[in-house]
Amino acid sequence: MFWNTLAKRVTNGTLHLHFPDGTVHTLGSGQPEATIEFRRRGTLRRILMWPGLQLGETYMRGEWNVPRNDLLPLFEIVLRNLGTGAYSPLARAVRPVIRTISEFNWPWRARRNISRHYDLDARLFRKFLDRDMQYSCAYFPRPGLSLEDAQTAKREHVARKLLLEPDAKVLDIGCGWGGMALHLAEHYGAKVVGLTLSSEQLELAQQRARERGLAERVEFRLQDYRRHRGSYDAIVSVGMFEHVGRPQYQRFFDTVHKLLAPGGTTLLHTIGRSGPPAATNPWIRRHIFPGGYIPALSEMARPVEKSGLVMSDLEVLRLHYAETLKHWNQRFQATREEFSKELGEEFCRMWEFYLQISQAAFRWSDLVVLQLQLNRSNDSVPMTRDYLYGESRHIGRSAAISA
Amino acid sequence: MFWNTLAKRVTNGTLHLHFPDGTVHTLGSGQPEATIEFRRRGTLRRILMWPGLQLGETYMRGEWNVPRNDLLPLFEIVLRNLGTGAYSPLARAVRPVIRTISEFNWPWRARRNISRHYDLDARLFRKFLDRDMQYSCAYFPRPGLSLEDAQTAKREHVARKLLLEPDAKVLDIGCGWGGMALHLAEHYGAKVVGLTLSSEQLELAQQRARERGLAERVEFRLQDYRRHRGSYDAIVSVGMFEHVGRPQYQRFFDTVHKLLAPGGTTLLHTIGRSGPPAATNPWIRRHIFPGGYIPALSEMARPVEKSGLVMSDLEVLRLHYAETLKHWNQRFQATREEFSKELGEEFCRMWEFYLQISQAAFRWSDLVVLQLQLNRSNDSVPMTRDYLYGESRHIGRSAAISA
Repeated sequence: MFWNTLAKRVTNGTLHLHFPDGTVHTLGSGQPEATIEFRRRGTLRRILMWPGLQLGETYMRGEWNVPRNDLLPLFEIVLRNLGTGAYSPLARAVRPVIRTISEFNWPWRARRNISRHYDLDARLFRKFLDRDMQYSCAYFPRPGLSLEDAQTAKREHVARKLLLEPDAKVLDIGCGWGGMALHLAEHYGAKVVGLTLSSEQLELAQQRARERGLAERVEFRLQDYRRHRGSYDAIVSVGMFEHVGRPQYQRFFDTVHKLLAPGGTTLLHTIGRSGPPAATNPWIRRHIFPGGYIPALSEMARPVEKSGLVMSDLEVLRLHYAETLKHWNQRFQATREEFSKELGEEFCRMWEFYLQISQAAFRWSDLVVLQLQLNRSNDSVPMTRDYLYGESRHIGRSAAISA
Repeated sequence: MFWNTLAKRVTNGTLHLHFPDGTVHTLGSGQPEATIEFRRRGTLRRILMWPGLQLGETYMRGEWNVPRNDLLPLFEIVLRNLGTGAYSPLARAVRPVIRTISEFNWPWRARRNISRHYDLDARLFRKFLDRDMQYSCAYFPRPGLSLEDAQTAKREHVARKLLLEPDAKVLDIGCGWGGMALHLAEHYGAKVVGLTLSSEQLELAQQRARERGLAERVEFRLQDYRRHRGSYDAIVSVGMFEHVGRPQYQRFFDTVHKLLAPGGTTLLHTIGRSGPPAATNPWIRRHIFPGGYIPALSEMARPVEKSGLVMSDLEVLRLHYAETLKHWNQRFQATREEFSKELGEEFCRMWEFYLQISQAAFRWSDLVVLQLQLNRSNDSVPMTRDYLYGESRHIGRSAAISA
């Protein structure tokens, strides 16, 4: 009965379940093929009660394994067949309440949430990110591009959308380890202020500015964007909006409007959902991004409209993040043993689960990356998007508009 | 007292008001400068009671004039100073109710609404539109382009976004006089079905298909899109969504999803609002587009998400429609006398008011054109938008994706 119900839900691919007592159950048929080896009794039942949380929890605790730590075929089958929602009625009732409270991102809480993730030893990030430490979706104009080249292409693509003139004043909200800010200063002659809530990121970003002789042009600060004052020709925010929290969306866009000079341009790069609004995966919330929320466009559009900002372009990058995460996981796996020794096996299992479930969600579920270009008026950017493509590199606002 | 209140609201530009008794009032200072010559007493008061409706009504009835029928400087001052909302509390209370009822676009009502506008003598449209009779926003990749060239550029830009292979089956929802359908058949080898609710449009579209030897490849039908059945590699809809009505948005996107083959692509081109949702100008509703509604993105995003369609690109064309409408009004003015003789002066005043208030709204208010590219899955279109730009003309889906 139990197996029949389960078997009916697997119509794409084959799932081999190995149990501690030696029995094997096979569900479905065809490709992809995935194998789970359970090491304890009761794990499967616990997963089925609340897969969105328990799939990750039980993997972290080592209750099951997959060959070569390759979770992707399993995730493909799960996402294309079973879904990952909560089945428990209680969980479904309580969750919206918890969600609203926990998303209300007071500055002190934002600080704590960000520290928790980004103050992880920078060595970890160095090991799996590209050389410039871009911890956000890369841009693959051609297949087979290296991660380094794809992150450079991303910085260029974002920079073009900002239409910078030499000496433009730029604000980078959520500057990470400073890669984007330093790029804009070095290649576009911009004067950049970068904000972060992670002291680990601040320190490394400042060090990199000094090493590259850019300390005069780039200033990094440990500051919440809501407490910042100024007027900027351009604002860039890459991979930070996921931490803003829905109750603060209006405030975010109002703040951007306030900080942007008339005629200025903003590029907001964030993970989004192509489907309707949905709760963040509870396992990701608990272990990876506390306070994080992935917006659907329908949740961002209204606060943008109310803020007075004019959206001039929305690019939806679809499989670029899946490619990026594939690279990250490959690099992580290559030095996994080192981390296992230092941070423990449970940490490694958490990290590889995170990198691979995210990759799967971009490939087979509804995650995308949204790049919103936002302005103070409807003539701040050129009439067409030609300036983003072709050979015209490092083109400024006035050149692009009069071209 | 009255003049003081009014004068305070004009801070950009100068407004000269000439009254029938010979008195002249001047409000504000600087550019632009506009002159209204009132021909009756009480007109100004009526306009101020409900400007959104009465500005147009009184102009149509000849209660006031502007030099050379050039309403644009006046509209610039109005949009940048006074706004056009209803001041009467009653009007504000009643309008949302009327709005919801009148927007519920039953098929029979849709038919009537469309007939009313588009069954106007095709000769009128021929006189002010381009040769191909594109009654929607053109695309100006370079300033100074002729209307003919800009409409050709629009057809090309839309066609590229559809990623057509030879013999692709295409549905054109709201095909007008057939220009887009014929272009896709002639230059991309597509097999097109075009739907319209106007028998005038149907007849002319069919005639043009025969004349261009495309009657085998293009079929035009007098049919509501909700009653159509089929499966298409691509769906295109240009300038029709404005007639759909908000209560039908979900049904529109669900229908597109149903009619689109897996792997297919849709391009939806519609007027939109960059600001928050707002009622259609009541004068436009009464005289030009009964049942029409201009969506904000926030009103379209949710039904798109629920339909299961994946948005892969959103281009926001801003000043292109202002340019298009400028051309249309210039052409209309050039043959105005002819129309005045045949359809009367009131019709001409209605038409020039419509063409110019629309141009002003795209230039100084929050109207834009939205081009949404919608797919059944997240890998239906190439990873980047390079295929839309540069020299690669007439590129098909497989070439673009493998490029």
